[in-house]
Parts: sequence; C-alpha cells; structure tokens
Amino acid sequence: MTQVKTAITPTRQENFPEWYQSVVREGQLAENSDVRGCMIILPQGLSLWENIKTYLNLHFKRTNHKNAYFPLLIPKSYLEEEAAHVDGFAKECAVVTHTKLGLNSDGELVPQGKLEEPYIIRPTSETIIGHSFAKWIQSYRDLPVLINQWANVMRWEMRTRIFLRTSEFLWQEGHTAHATREEAVKETKLILDIYSKMASDILALAPFIGSKTEDEKFPGAEITYCLEAMMQDGKALQAGTSHYLGQNFAKAQKIKFVDEQGEHQLAHTTSWGVTTRLIGALIMTHADDNGLIIPPRVAEYHAMIIPIFRNDEEKAAVMKVANELKDSLFEKMFFNNPIAAEIDESALRGGEKFWRAVKKGYPFIIELGPKDIEKNQICLIKRNQENLKDKAFMKIDTFIEMASDELTTMQQDIYQKAVNFRETHTFEMTSKNKFVEFFKKDKKGFISCFAHENLPDEIKSLLKELKVTARCIPLASEEERGTCLFTQKENAKKMIFAKAY
Amino acid sequence: MTQVKTAITPTRQENFPEWYQSVVREGQLAENSDVRGCMIILPQGLSLWENIKTYLNLHFKRTNHKNAYFPLLIPKSYLEEEAAHVDGFAKECAVVTHTKLGLNSDGELVPQGKLEEPYIIRPTSETIIGHSFAKWIQSYRDLPVLINQWANVMRWEMRTRIFLRTSEFLWQEGHTAHATREEAVKETKLILDIYSKMASDILALAPFIGSKTEDEKFPGAEITYCLEAMMQDGKALQAGTSHYLGQNFAKAQKIKFVDEQGEHQLAHTTSWGVTTRLIGALIMTHADDNGLIIPPRVAEYHAMIIPIFRNDEEKAAVMKVANELKDSLFEKMFFNNPIAAEIDESALRGGEKFWRAVKKGYPFIIELGPKDIEKNQICLIKRNQENLKDKAFMKIDTFIEMASDELTTMQQDIYQKAVNFRETHTFEMTSKNKFVEFFKKDKKGFISCFAHENLPDEIKSLLKELKVTARCIPLASEEERGTCLFTQKENAKKMIFAKAY
Repeated sequence: MTQVKTAITPTRQENFPEWYQSVVREGQLAENSDVRGCMIILPQGLSLWENIKTYLNLHFKRTNHKNAYFPLLIPKSYLEEEAAHVDGFAKECAVVTHTKLGLNSDGELVPQGKLEEPYIIRPTSETIIGHSFAKWIQSYRDLPVLINQWANVMRWEMRTRIFLRTSEFLWQEGHTAHATREEAVKETKLILDIYSKMASDILALAPFIGSKTEDEKFPGAEITYCLEAMMQDGKALQAGTSHYLGQNFAKAQKIKFVDEQGEHQLAHTTSWGVTTRLIGALIMTHADDNGLIIPPRVAEYHAMIIPIFRNDEEKAAVMKVANELKDSLFEKMFFNNPIAAEIDESALRGGEKFWRAVKKGYPFIIELGPKDIEKNQICLIKRNQENLKDKAFMKIDTFIEMASDELTTMQQDIYQKAVNFRETHTFEMTSKNKFVEFFKKDKKGFISCFAHENLPDEIKSLLKELKVTARCIPLASEEERGTCLFTQKENAKKMIFAKAY
Repeated sequence: MTQVKTAITPTRQENFPEWYQSVVREGQLAENSDVRGCMIILPQGLSLWENIKTYLNLHFKRTNHKNAYFPLLIPKSYLEEEAAHVDGFAKECAVVTHTKLGLNSDGELVPQGKLEEPYIIRPTSETIIGHSFAKWIQSYRDLPVLINQWANVMRWEMRTRIFLRTSEFLWQEGHTAHATREEAVKETKLILDIYSKMASDILALAPFIGSKTEDEKFPGAEITYCLEAMMQDGKALQAGTSHYLGQNFAKAQKIKFVDEQGEHQLAHTTSWGVTTRLIGALIMTHADDNGLIIPPRVAEYHAMIIPIFRNDEEKAAVMKVANELKDSLFEKMFFNNPIAAEIDESALRGGEKFWRAVKKGYPFIIELGPKDIEKNQICLIKRNQENLKDKAFMKIDTFIEMASDELTTMQQDIYQKAVNFRETHTFEMTSKNKFVEFFKKDKKGFISCFAHENLPDEIKSLLKELKVTARCIPLASEEERGTCLFTQKENAKKMIFAKAY
C-alpha cells in the first residue's frame, strides 16, 4: 500500500493531541500568546464564537433574558462570602494588588499604589451578580430576574490547551432568580434545551444530554444538567452546563423577597454557561486529517472561490465571473444569512490555495478557470466529501439555485456522522471486568451501564486510577433502573462513563 | 407663574451634573458598583451599546476589517517598550502580581503565588496587537492587516462619572498596518467617516468633525481625527478618535516588511476607537427634564404599550388588543429591524407606568383602555413632543401603517434639534477679550475662531486657567485662514475652543 499524504500532520491516529494543535494552527483559529496560558483568538476562530453568540442571544432574548455587564474585578470580600468559591476559585485566580507602575531607584518599572483590599479578576461573576440581585429583589413582583452576561473570565490553569483549557476564556454566564423551586427548575431545563438545540442545530454536535451525579455536579448546585459530547478519540468533552442552585446561593448572598402572603423567602437561583471551549468540541468532532470541517450554519464564509489563470487576460475574465458568482450567492439565503463567499486573490499557486481552503474548512471549495467560464460551469468540492480529489462540474446557474439546499444537506450529513460516531462508540456493558478492560486498553468511546450514585470508596479509587468519571445520567433513559455494574445492587440508574477533557 | 413639575430632579438648569446622574438612574441605564470606579451596565444601557456594536460591525466588515480577540493581560515588558505608554498608562493601571489567594496564619485570605513579572490589565491592546503584527507581517503581500477588537479595558481614574469616565469601560479598538502613508491616512479617514455616520445616523449626535492640534493629539500620532459633540451644558465631549500613527509605533514594535523591490520597510499604522462614553454623549445631547430620549434607531424597544383597566374583564379585553398591536408592529420594519414594543404588565398604576416609560425614553408611549378598544384607537404620546400632556388619538390600523415613517421622522427631528443646538451655541469670535469673557462667565457653547497651533506660553496658561482647550480644526473649514485671535498673526487656522468632559 502506498502512503496517502494528508494536509495535517500528524494524523488523528498517529497523535490526536498534536493533530488537534495542527488543525488549530493551520485553520488559523487561534495562537498562543506571551501571556501565561492565554490565547489570541484569530478572526477565523472568533467568527465561530460570534455565530454561537448570535444564535444564543436570539434564543435568550426570545425567552425574556436580558444582557447586562458587571465589573471585571471582584472584591476579595465577595469571594470570602461563598465557601465554595474560597475552596475552588481562590486557588487559581489573578490577583490585582496595585494601582500603577512606577520607576524604582534602579530605574525599573515596579508595582506601586498598593490597594487596601485586593481584587481578583472574575473567575465567574456569581458573587458580584448575586450582590446586585440582593439589592434589586424585594418583592415577589420583582421576580423572576433573568440576566445573561457575555464576558471574559480568568482562572489560572497549570496545564493549558488552546480553546479547551485556557487561563482567560470567553463565555456567557446566565444568572436567574425565581420565587419557587418549580420555576427555577423549569428555567434550568429551558436553558438546557436551548443549549441542546444550539449544539445539534448549528454546531452539529451529538452530545448526551443528562444530569450530573452527586459527586460530579457543580459545588453548591442541587441539580447540574450538562451536555457531554464525544470527541473522535472517544473522550468526553463537557459542552455546557445549567445548574439549579436551590436556595444555597441565595442564602449566602442574602437574595430575599416578600411573597404574596407577606412572608420573607429566599429566592431559588440558577446559573448556566457555555464557553469558547465549544470551538474545541467543534474541531475534535468534525475535523479530519486534512484539517477543519466547519458545519455551514456556523461558518462565516460558506464558499471559497479559487480563480485559476495563466495570464492577465485570463485573470480579468475569470475574476469577472468569480465576482458575479460571489454576488449571486449573496442574494441567496441559507437560514437567516446570505450565502457568503470569499475569492482567494493571494499570490499563492492554485494547489496551495486549494489546500489552504481545505485546512480552513470552507463548506464549498469552488475552482474556476478559463475552460470553466467558457462552459458556464464551476468545479465544486464539498469539504465533507469522502475523497477530496473527486471534483464535480456543474453549470453555474444550477449551482446557485441548489447552493442553499446543498448546505442544508451538508449540515445534516455532518450532524448525522457525529450521531453515528457516538452511537457506534457507546457500548452497553454489564460486566465490571469488561468495563475495566475497556478503559485499561484505551478503547475508544463511552460506556453506558447501570450504576449507583454513591459508589463504595474502592470503586471510586478504581475509577480514579482508570481516569474515568461518570459523565451523566442521560435524560433519555432517566427512568430506567437496573443492577449496578460495580455493586450488583438493584435500582441503579443508567449512566455514561468516559475519560474526559 | 406656577412651577412646572418635572420627572427628573434637579433639572438641567438647576444642576446639570446631578441631573445627568438622575437620568442615568431613572432610565435604568447603569449603577455604581463596589469596585472602585467601575459601573454595572444594566440591560437598558447595554442594549444601546449592542446597537452601536451591530452598526459598527456591519460597516467594519463591509470595509474588510476582521474581529479578533487578544489577551486581557499585558506583560509589563510590553509596556516598557513604548515610551508613550510608560508616561501615560503606567500611572493608572491595574497591576496583577499574584496567581492565587490563600489563607495566612490568621485565617485571612491573602495574595499568594507571586508572579516573576507582573501583568497589567490592558488599558489598550496597542502593544500586544503590535507584537502580533510584527510576527504576522513579513512581506508587502501580507498588507494591509485590518484588525478590530471589542473588549473591556481598565485605567484607574481618580474621579469617575458613570459612562463618561469609568475605570473599566467597554470599547472597540481598531489597529491596522499598511505599506504606505497614503493608504494608512486613507484608512484613518475611512474610519472617521464610519464614526461620523454612526454618530449622525443612529445616535443623532451633531459633532464637529476635525483634526486635533499638535498639542491635543494622541501621543505618538501624526494625525488624530476626532468627533467633538456639544452637550446641552455647552461643554464638548470627544465621541471618537481615529489616529494615523505614521511609522512611530511600527518602529517601537518592529513591524517591518519587505516591499515589492525587496527593500525592508517599516509599516504605517493606524488605531481608532469608540467607547461606552458614547452613551453619556447620547444622554447629555437628547435627554430633557423628564428623562431619557432615545433616538429610535438605537432603541431596543420602539414603543411601550400601557394597558389601562379597572377589572379582570376589561383587562382581558385590553390585553388581547395590546398583544395584537405588539405583534402587528413586529411585522413592520424600521430600518433593518422589526418594530419592537413592550407591554407594561407590572402592578403599577397607569400614571406611574406612563412616567416610567417617559423617564426610560421610549420613542412611542401608547395608552390603551376599554374606551380605546371600543373605538379601535390608541392614545399616542411621542417622547420627543413639546408637551407630554398632548395626547393624540388615532385608529390602530392607521398607527400601524404609519409607525415606521413616524419613527423615521422622529429620528430626523431629534437629530435636527441637536444640529440646531450646536449651531445656535457656536459663536464666531474675533476678539480675545470677548473670548475670555465668554468662558469666564460660563456662557454655554463653543467658540469658533482663527488661531495658531503653536501659541505662546502666556496664551497656553490663559487657556489652562479658563479650563478651555482647542477641541479640533474642523474639516469643513480646513482650508480657511485668518488672523489669530490671540497673536494677531496671519495664516491661522479655524479652530473650535470649548470646555470639555
């Protein structure tokens, strides 16, 4: 067999983590910076986040949520009010201690103007938004309060990986307060539903939707709903969470109201968020050994047009048609947006342009040369097709007419492929030995089995050793009960286990 | 004369700065926070910024700019490379010195994990983006690079005023690099043009558009273009700047390229930005003694519908029509957006609802009671009308048909009022004594006169004493020359002088 050359080295098979870094680099999504653990999000990467933001804003606003913006800095005292935050975020936060830099006697710039009380850069805005809620909410008439914030946050991570775990990242954080448990749980599920639709409809991810076990849920939460997506190496990536916090945070933050009967009550609160990590999920779900594959609904540009010519005369003729094609596509709609095409006018050769477009994941790659324009045709390569060397020729008018439908089909195909991958790599299991063997041998995928939430310490140790966690109790099989794989006791719930990012 | 009660106290006349704070508070735009000099931007305030962002993103993208995102933190060493930054920003920056908070022996949370080199929170991303440009740009083929960033920045201000001067604020910062001076200056003017259109078309501001004098321009810039808007107290507010930086920053940041002849060259760079300060400009230009007036093109909601009823039966009937009206308006477009209405379903009384809507600046306030629905009519109050007690009754269908045109007219009227105010409060002057008297007596407005850029020290002292600065050399009268008001020398340029925010 001859070796097939791929645009990305190493391949997924050879070294998945390095393949991931190469895809990010060649796809021009992001770069590392000189700031510890912080990335530079390049235009191609940021456009994905902007499209996620547009989709979520539409659905958050449709369901009466309001965007607001709270300070970047959190007073140290706020953090101290919340025991869970002291335990968690205090260990990895950026601390602001001074108000200026000034020259010392050696002529060096050093911190000066020490603050009486340090601030930390928000690792989450939970506490500062909680303080506002306590001030805003007096009566049941003030409820519900439904706030969302788009912001940057910081948590100093020891080991970082671009998009997946960075010290600074972008996210949205929703915080809501309600009069009753029922309403707050309904809100938590409503958001889970918006996240699920976002994941499947635009990102073409096929996550398990479920709730976290007691051990795995967010500290302080009564219920944590989550999306657990399967990456192509079989590991799980948590792609969004929605928490019902009960009255726990309201108690710590004094979020109280007078109810219809005139009684003082604590509010029921929720919080929920997704981050730029979703871009990592997108890459590790869809990209292949030739680079990015961007589902059309989240792509900024749907097509890259590559003009081919040997001289100025040919160039003029080809560019004219290329621009007309771009304009005609822009008059056609794909969902809420015009079909956007770019023309690669760079000085690269045709083949280089083609592989650059492949690595950047454009849904359509269109080659257009002098012979094509004579025949009123284009040469179309779909980024998700089996073999990128298969070129399809078609009349320009036909292509323009069918472009939107083709993108819809491509979106569905990419999604279906993710569903199939998840289904063929999720294994029902009833034997503990096989469970252990599966993960010891680094087999690819998730295990679905019955298990109890409170497992004995020896089982917890075993899972820790295997680096495996209970990812979720899927909502789809929430009611099923069976014999626990680990303890053989009855009445255990159906759970998904996996190694995770 | 009887005293007319206003919804906002004090009035503009009584105390302009306090009136401003009241308008912000009653309009629910923003609040102060516990973080020194930082504000909480409430949904109503943030929606204005989001609309500005949508408009600018459209025009930035149309002109081939790309959004990217750079780290929040800047290494101290980056700041040191730029002498102008050491002089300016080092004096008021938030310094991050530690990586966590931990308990000391007294059980207090204290900063721990000292960083070898401190970071500062970006006061601007000039240096960090410059570092990327130096890396990205090798050849003339890589130019131009046209980057924009939407971000939060921090500069610790001693005296803060909500929106106008806050320690943390939101902004967009554009940074571009070009092969030639000509292209870079063209870019600087292109952006000035986008800002001018944004100011007049959506914010209904009527600023002077001009260039800064030698003394007033951005340190390191060769040309600083600016928008100088007149507030209702006659003071100037700088509403946006666009700088041509020559090769100065490129030299400090080593942004070099090989040109078509194979020669090494320094790039020509630009930078430009607008901030959440624009919301302050909007308020101080349009609001009156009854609160906010929001120009329709920047309003999130164009209409507030106030249902009036005395019992459940009336409520059901009125709410049905209110919802139908809201839906019918949503099917009509005002520029790119559906006409958005809210219905005030709160427990407040009708009069309270009305004044709340007035203070929040809804373009249309619509009262709807049982008698109105019998007659298929609404009672319409336009927020910008002379007397808010003048109620106009009109058929619902007529209103729906004319709503978009009415909003267009209102937008124009609000803009024209700002133009008129600027024109009637800008005084041509040829006498130095009258100039001094004008500002000493705190007369309201700008002075337009001929002056030289390099004024003698005694004149500079005089201006400082008067707290007056040269705001700009208006582009509209750029070519005019005359006798300097201060020195009597010929060949002086036409300038605008004012007190400023």
